[in-house]
Amino acid sequence: MNAKISQQLAQQLERCSTINEDVGHVDQQMFRQGMSKLAAAVNVITTDGHAGKAGFTASAVCSVSDSPPTLLVCLNRSASVYETFKTNQVLCVNTLNAQQQHLSNVFGGKTPMSARFAEGKWRTLLTQAPVLEDALVSFDCRVVQSVSIGSHDVLFCQVKAIRQQSEENALVYFNRSYCETQSM
Amino acid sequence: MNAKISQQLAQQLERCSTINEDVGHVDQQMFRQGMSKLAAAVNVITTDGHAGKAGFTASAVCSVSDSPPTLLVCLNRSASVYETFKTNQVLCVNTLNAQQQHLSNVFGGKTPMSARFAEGKWRTLLTQAPVLEDALVSFDCRVVQSVSIGSHDVLFCQVKAIRQQSEENALVYFNRSYCETQSM
Repeated sequence: MNAKISQQLAQQLERCSTINEDVGHVDQQMFRQGMSKLAAAVNVITTDGHAGKAGFTASAVCSVSDSPPTLLVCLNRSASVYETFKTNQVLCVNTLNAQQQHLSNVFGGKTPMSARFAEGKWRTLLTQAPVLEDALVSFDCRVVQSVSIGSHDVLFCQVKAIRQQSEENALVYFNRSYCETQSM
Repeated sequence: MNAKISQQLAQQLERCSTINEDVGHVDQQMFRQGMSKLAAAVNVITTDGHAGKAGFTASAVCSVSDSPPTLLVCLNRSASVYETFKTNQVLCVNTLNAQQQHLSNVFGGKTPMSARFAEGKWRTLLTQAPVLEDALVSFDCRVVQSVSIGSHDVLFCQVKAIRQQSEENALVYFNRSYCETQSM
């Protein structure tokens, strides 16, 4: 094999390892791999009310409209906390700072619900949903509408109260790892 | 004023500057200030079809369900590109890497549409929507459902093709600034 062909093969191999395309049929694994590249803030979503207290870790949260102030949270219908959130119809999005990775793990794993809330300091604002005292920002919300899409419900939430800190760095999940934001 | 009172006042002032609460009536400005703390990936959303080619910068994108593979994009109904996206019913979410801040500015500002696409290298995958060659990840989608919430439409999009790079860092918008992700 001459040097030129060898070099071309090496370039093709390098290209294979750095670019990946899936066209036509995107399966669950491809989709998850692609989504791992969409960096997102890490949030602990909480609720309390007639159906009891619950909380889980989520990155599928985003701003929708500022009039009226509305955000959305995606919730898997097969999640153990699903019925609690659907009954209570209130929730708080607690966005974690770069030092709160342990809370993400506690609320994202198999820890029993009572033990989850033993971590962190909690209070309430307007609804009964637990507000994490030192979250980067907390959005205390009422669920006003929901839409079922595939395996998930998308909960549209009107923001009734906000509590925020300044001068903290954000916790971000990217490439299946925790990161922090670094100014450019 | 004695030293103790002076110290207490200083502590109160410090607390005021680091924690901010808005309870009951959350106005647009409070909501936007709170949302500035929700770190998010930066994406250039593109379309092409009967209504022509268009693109804009958006951070309100998130994963919804992996079966079928679905994401959502929030689009302001008063945006100049709104009708183009609604007519074409296809879009590509191009997630930017940490070196692509200039593309975010070009697609997020007042640059005429033709001049926007003069920046970057573009191709297509399955739909006609422009795919940015060196995006961190691109999701080529068909819009399958939309819901109007306040000022925005939430577009639910089935992912038909994915193209991704490995080993690039993400561009993140946080605290009204561009950041990059830094491993912890």
